[in-house]
Amino acid sequence: MAKVNRNYLKLPGSYLFSTIGKKVNAFIADNPDKKVIRLGIGDVTQPLTPTITAALHRAVDEMGRAETFRGYAPDLGYDFLRNAISVNDYKARGCDIEPDEIFVSDGAKCDSGNIQELFALDNKIAVCDPVYPVYVDSNVMAGRGGEYDKVLEGFTDIVYMPCTEDNGFAPVIPDTVPDIIYLCFPNNPTGAVISKEELQKWVDYANDNGSVIIYDAAYEAYIRTEGVPHSIYECSGARTCAIELHSFSKNAGFTGVRLGYTVVPKDLVIDDVALHSLWARRHGTKYNGAPYIVQRAGEAVYSDEGKKEIKGLVDYYMRNASYILNGLKQAGYSVSGGVDAPYIWLKTPDNMTSWEFFDHLLTSANVVGTPGSGFGPHGEGYFRLTAFGSYENTVEAVDRIIG
Amino acid sequence: MAKVNRNYLKLPGSYLFSTIGKKVNAFIADNPDKKVIRLGIGDVTQPLTPTITAALHRAVDEMGRAETFRGYAPDLGYDFLRNAISVNDYKARGCDIEPDEIFVSDGAKCDSGNIQELFALDNKIAVCDPVYPVYVDSNVMAGRGGEYDKVLEGFTDIVYMPCTEDNGFAPVIPDTVPDIIYLCFPNNPTGAVISKEELQKWVDYANDNGSVIIYDAAYEAYIRTEGVPHSIYECSGARTCAIELHSFSKNAGFTGVRLGYTVVPKDLVIDDVALHSLWARRHGTKYNGAPYIVQRAGEAVYSDEGKKEIKGLVDYYMRNASYILNGLKQAGYSVSGGVDAPYIWLKTPDNMTSWEFFDHLLTSANVVGTPGSGFGPHGEGYFRLTAFGSYENTVEAVDRIIG
Repeated sequence: MAKVNRNYLKLPGSYLFSTIGKKVNAFIADNPDKKVIRLGIGDVTQPLTPTITAALHRAVDEMGRAETFRGYAPDLGYDFLRNAISVNDYKARGCDIEPDEIFVSDGAKCDSGNIQELFALDNKIAVCDPVYPVYVDSNVMAGRGGEYDKVLEGFTDIVYMPCTEDNGFAPVIPDTVPDIIYLCFPNNPTGAVISKEELQKWVDYANDNGSVIIYDAAYEAYIRTEGVPHSIYECSGARTCAIELHSFSKNAGFTGVRLGYTVVPKDLVIDDVALHSLWARRHGTKYNGAPYIVQRAGEAVYSDEGKKEIKGLVDYYMRNASYILNGLKQAGYSVSGGVDAPYIWLKTPDNMTSWEFFDHLLTSANVVGTPGSGFGPHGEGYFRLTAFGSYENTVEAVDRIIG
Repeated sequence: MAKVNRNYLKLPGSYLFSTIGKKVNAFIADNPDKKVIRLGIGDVTQPLTPTITAALHRAVDEMGRAETFRGYAPDLGYDFLRNAISVNDYKARGCDIEPDEIFVSDGAKCDSGNIQELFALDNKIAVCDPVYPVYVDSNVMAGRGGEYDKVLEGFTDIVYMPCTEDNGFAPVIPDTVPDIIYLCFPNNPTGAVISKEELQKWVDYANDNGSVIIYDAAYEAYIRTEGVPHSIYECSGARTCAIELHSFSKNAGFTGVRLGYTVVPKDLVIDDVALHSLWARRHGTKYNGAPYIVQRAGEAVYSDEGKKEIKGLVDYYMRNASYILNGLKQAGYSVSGGVDAPYIWLKTPDNMTSWEFFDHLLTSANVVGTPGSGFGPHGEGYFRLTAFGSYENTVEAVDRIIG
């Protein structure tokens, strides 16, 4: 008699963004005349840039001719892309990451969900609170969560590191030493960043305690402030304690194209085992590479023209971020983020809960945001807006909210 | 102190095809003048067809314009593709599978590796022997394998169902009742097929015992014999016991494009839990959909022109299969498969082991095949050749082997 993985049943409700999607669809069905503006899910809206589409067209043509057709990609990614990543995202910043330490994938969400497989089930996980739900949910599904505690609104075996106004939305090193520490900067959902000095403390802590840091750098392209690290490998000693996740979704607009990568340095050895070899084994066994045409699009991101276009995209969204941040601030909201990140984190007014404010915003302004409590108990009383809309919609949404 | 998942360390050696790749690369480095022909890994060689590339180009253009740009895909796949699959692969065959029971993914390899996550760790797994390595390896990595036994050349907790010349390469129902049964027809690696009557026995057995069948139908497009089922849902009762995996790799040549799907019927309830909801949760949490442009290519496979072109591709490869099968047979080899499948399974001559024959073929004929023992202990003494080469190379390879 087959038995299901009952850890799945411990997850309360459905995935946050599925719930939001259902609520919004119900509202639209009841109010077909209303123009709903979505600043909720972190999905981009601007089209792929000309250099990217040209690269895709060229690759499609190659796939249509016998002489240039490509079958299975190398498990870990094509060299042309791994080399471009190593040169541009690492060596240009003084980070010593070689192409063969870079694993190309179909996105940072998949990698951030799958990476926990490399670790034993009795590792203690620490996450920021609020947090991107995938880190927690994927560990709960594997059995590292313990039980869901309704009072705590969290899992008994997971260490939550509160990130609130009081600590400037920066996690504090917890009392219990965690085995695996998930960090995401610029942060989703709060939009907070970390200085190199503060990040160095986490790297030192991990090395001192034999912990591994899973560093999610999906939003690094949005960093504008000098001294804010783009990669954890800017910190000394990170090669022996940190894995880094990257996405092409938010810089190049690849949410529907699907491309990401994960760095596992060869010096990261735990329990006498190199995590690099385990992740290579996982890729070899359970993955078949990102599509050739998509990897060529990724390569184009690093061309001179591509870089200019990508900067244009990021600038476009950051203009939105400024408009939201300044508009809400002037209207008296308590807001943070939005300077080095495409997310604005605001305190709900009038002591509304996050979901109350969600409903209020949807019905009164027809604007969709994300309830902070969906990211963890310390997100209660907060709300996330994203800068990924069109400029026109963003302006209209802010004017409706503050109007 | 972080601890690794030591189940990974139980896997002997590296993934089969990685090992072959290394051996071949070493041979080529030592023999740069030799023309090596690869009939080893099941990778296609013929280009994407015109209807497919046209669909890809159109979708790329859509992604380059703001009005038609698409961000995140629906978690479970676009309706246009799920509908086309339901109509063409199921309803046209009298199988009652609805679009919302179809989960679009980036390939059957990923799905066949990930599907085991839905089940508790104490489920007993049964696989054919020889077998596509991913079923075993993914379960071992999760902890369902027990220990590797060097004498058995297998894992102590896995039930192996021998498929040999004696039983016509068809598995026999095992003495121990397995909880999860992996079946693949047309079979990789043996090229054997199963009749509807025989498959019905497995479905009845699974329903009687509360077992779940994971049915890998990646090669169904190669079936030519009347009465051989294309889908397990042709059998009555399969909706309550079977999950089916499908690939676009082998029919449409998408090995480098990456598209597949998995069917989880809503009637498949285990332990009072619908597996459909668990798989949806997995997709929602750890996956972000197949690329929009790739899903449009998948849709084009089901257009009238697309179907004609795909049939042409399959016919092309099956001409190769016939050439290999007949050539080797006439030369006195003992061969099977190759009639309803793109794989030819041959007995190694002169009592050579599978790897001895691999080395022999590589050095004497400069032809790459796959050692049967790489698929399991009962694959020892066998060897797999694939029909996925070009016709010219296939003819040359066979002539070299039998010459």
